[in-house]
Parts: sequence; C-alpha cells; structure tokens
Amino acid sequence: MQLARVTGQVVCTQKDPHLAGIKLMVLQPIAPDGTDLGRTLIAVDAVGAGVGERVFFVRGKEASFPFHPVEVPTDAGIVGIVDHWSLG
Amino acid sequence: MQLARVTGQVVCTQKDPHLAGIKLMVLQPIAPDGTDLGRTLIAVDAVGAGVGERVFFVRGKEASFPFHPVEVPTDAGIVGIVDHWSLG
Amino acid sequence: MQLARVTGQVVCTQKDPHLAGIKLMVLQPIAPDGTDLGRTLIAVDAVGAGVGERVFFVRGKEASFPFHPVEVPTDAGIVGIVDHWSLG
Amino acid sequence: MQLARVTGQVVCTQKDPHLAGIKLMVLQPIAPDGTDLGRTLIAVDAVGAGVGERVFFVRGKEASFPFHPVEVPTDAGIVGIVDHWSLG
Amino acid sequence: MQLARVTGQVVCTQKDPHLAGIKLMVLQPIAPDGTDLGRTLIAVDAVGAGVGERVFFVRGKEASFPFHPVEVPTDAGIVGIVDHWSLG
Repeated sequence: MQLARVTGQVVCTQKDPHLAGIKLMVLQPIAPDGTDLGRTLIAVDAVGAGVGERVFFVRGKEASFPFHPVEVPTDAGIVGIVDHWSLG
Repeated sequence: MQLARVTGQVVCTQKDPHLAGIKLMVLQPIAPDGTDLGRTLIAVDAVGAGVGERVFFVRGKEASFPFHPVEVPTDAGIVGIVDHWSLG
Repeated sequence: MQLARVTGQVVCTQKDPHLAGIKLMVLQPIAPDGTDLGRTLIAVDAVGAGVGERVFFVRGKEASFPFHPVEVPTDAGIVGIVDHWSLG
Repeated sequence: MQLARVTGQVVCTQKDPHLAGIKLMVLQPIAPDGTDLGRTLIAVDAVGAGVGERVFFVRGKEASFPFHPVEVPTDAGIVGIVDHWSLG
Repeated sequence: MQLARVTGQVVCTQKDPHLAGIKLMVLQPIAPDGTDLGRTLIAVDAVGAGVGERVFFVRGKEASFPFHPVEVPTDAGIVGIVDHWSLG
C-alpha cells in the first residue's frame, strides 16, 4: 500500500455497470515525508475521501474487496484516511 | 486505474478462443493534464470505445470481470469512457 | 497486454509438473512501431507461436487461463499471433 | 518477496473495516547487502514485527493470506522476521 | 517468468506458519545472455534448486500453486531449473 494525496475526481457516464455509483478519485502517491512519489492514478473510493485529504490505497484485485460481493473492475482503491504516521 | 487515449486496434485471427469477438485496442496512457505517460499497451474493450476517445482502464485479472463468466485471458481492459475530470 | 517478438525457447527437464509439455518461449516486448520495448521475459505458449513471429501476451495469473483446469504456475503467456495492427 | 527494514507505523481511524486491529507499518525495502532499494511502502503485519527490525514481505493479494478468512484489502504484508541470510 | 541465478538463502525462525519447511532463496534475475537484469528478490523453492544454479521463476500469486492446497503467502517462486535455452 502507499500513501497518497487526493487531487481530483473523474466523471464518466459510459462505464462498466459494476462501477455505477462508485467515486473515482485522482491520487498523487506521496512518500512518508510528504513529497510526491511517482505517477498519478485513478482509484475507487471505499471510505469517503475528499479532495485534499491524505489517504492510503491498495493496488490490485484486492482494491475490490470493500465492495464485495460486487465484482468491481478496479486495480486501485482508497482504503483509509490517514490521521498521522510515525517514523522510528 | 489510469487515463488513456485510444490510438489503434490490433487484429489477429489465431488467438485464444476466449478472446473471440473481443476488440483489442492500443492505448497510450496519459496524465491528468493530457500528456503521454509511459508505454502503450493492448487492452480489451468492455464499453465500446473508439480510436481517439479518452478512456480509463484497469490492469490485472480484474480486467476480465466485465466478461464474466468467460475467463478472458487479459491483463488490461477499458472500463469507462471519460467525460471530464476535475483537479482540486 | 503487450506486443512481442518470439526470440527463443527455454529447455528445462527439472520443473514443476504442471509445466510438463508446455513450451516456454523467450519474448522481446515491442512497441506498436516495432521497436524493442523493455526487458525480455519467458512466457508459456497457448497458441503454437514460433520463433520470429509477432505475438501479444498477457501478464499475471490470467496467463494460466488457457490451460484451465490445470493450474499452470506462470505469470506470462502468449495468447495471440498478430496479423496486423492499425494506428488511428 | 523482498527484504525490508521497518521504519515506522501509520495511524488512521477512518478505514475499511477489514483493516480493523491490523498494524500498518512503513517499510524500506533493502538489498541483500543491507542498502536501501527502492521506495518505501505500507504493509500489514502478520508476525508482530517492530520498528527497526529486518523483515521480508510479500506483495499482492497473497499478503492477505495470513488473515484468512478475513478478506483484508492489502497488497503488501510482512510474513517473516529475518534471522540472517547467506550468500553463496 | 524470468531467468535467474540462485545467489543465497534466507533464514528466519519467526514467520507465517504457511511458510514452515519451505526454502527461501535469494535470486538475481538475468537476461538471456546471462548478464544481471534488475533487482535481487526472495523466492520460495518448489523444485530443489541450489545456490549457483540457473533457474526460472514466476511472480505473483501463481508462485504458490506448486504448494496447493497450502496457501503459501509468497509472490515469487522457482518453478524450473534451466538446462539451456536457444535464441532464434
């Protein structure tokens, strides 16, 4: 999983029916020190995250677990909103 | 998931039978600002996208979900045609 | 999925029994313009491709779908021989 | 799988319910010679690892196996604490 | 799949119970011409490979197939010892 900042939202009316009603957010992955880290991506939102919030997200089929038993065709999903992190 | 521009189509007559009747499109991934981002790839099309359209696609086994119960051997699939996106 | 050129074959007698009788080909991924694109890899062959042919292949567990119900331990498989592709 | 050093912990109260009670650790992947290797990531902890310890972790859906039958939405998980390794 | 050279072994006593009794080898991926190609990784061994041997390995969940029905939490596994390969 990786940390990210929510930077936007994607709107599309013509899509796979299993994506109906699911928010599609634009994420910028970030490093633990808060700097940008790699490419933006689109992720489904399972926790009600808003633009500007820091989240962590999961890649792969497991991004669809929170929507089970619906088989959401996604490879990235926000699974938590970050309060803070500590570095040892 | 990632944004992409549909740039072409692949034709092959000799292929795995589970791919029969499925369109294979060439995609150029793009960043939210519309610029090219990384390598082209081949994706199956689940939403009727045409060359020139902006879409978003999913990587991995979940690209075969829209064709369920057919076990389509693919690792990338177009799952939505983009209307627009907003950046916060 | 990606386009590739078949460049060789791997021979090994001591292997997982689920790979018995399956051809293992060396692939060089290529871009739509035919130039090499990234690292060579080993893929199982589900369509009878030969050295020198242009194919497209799938990555991940779905590379084992054509051999179902045998659970072939592979992460890459040739699923089509390319006739041609068009760029829009 | 890869070797890593545990460098921190992530705290978040608003998250997918299947992550409840699971520790989220910050990992720095390392090479066999102990030097840093690539980007930090967040992983669930299945073995009770602490900050500063050397571990090895798995990527992908299989990171959720130790929590079975709970379908933990993760793509990385610590599965062992390293005693030592030998290089031939 | 990729070719690799076995370069070492990892020892850990505190690990996920599904990894009990399974050898964990350090792999250096190699190109078809024998040169090193990318980062070392840790893989489970399903074929009895030893340090110094040339093998090919699989990435992803399918690395656990040879241990079925045990759900081994791994993302890389040696599935064959290479005799030789030919380049066309």
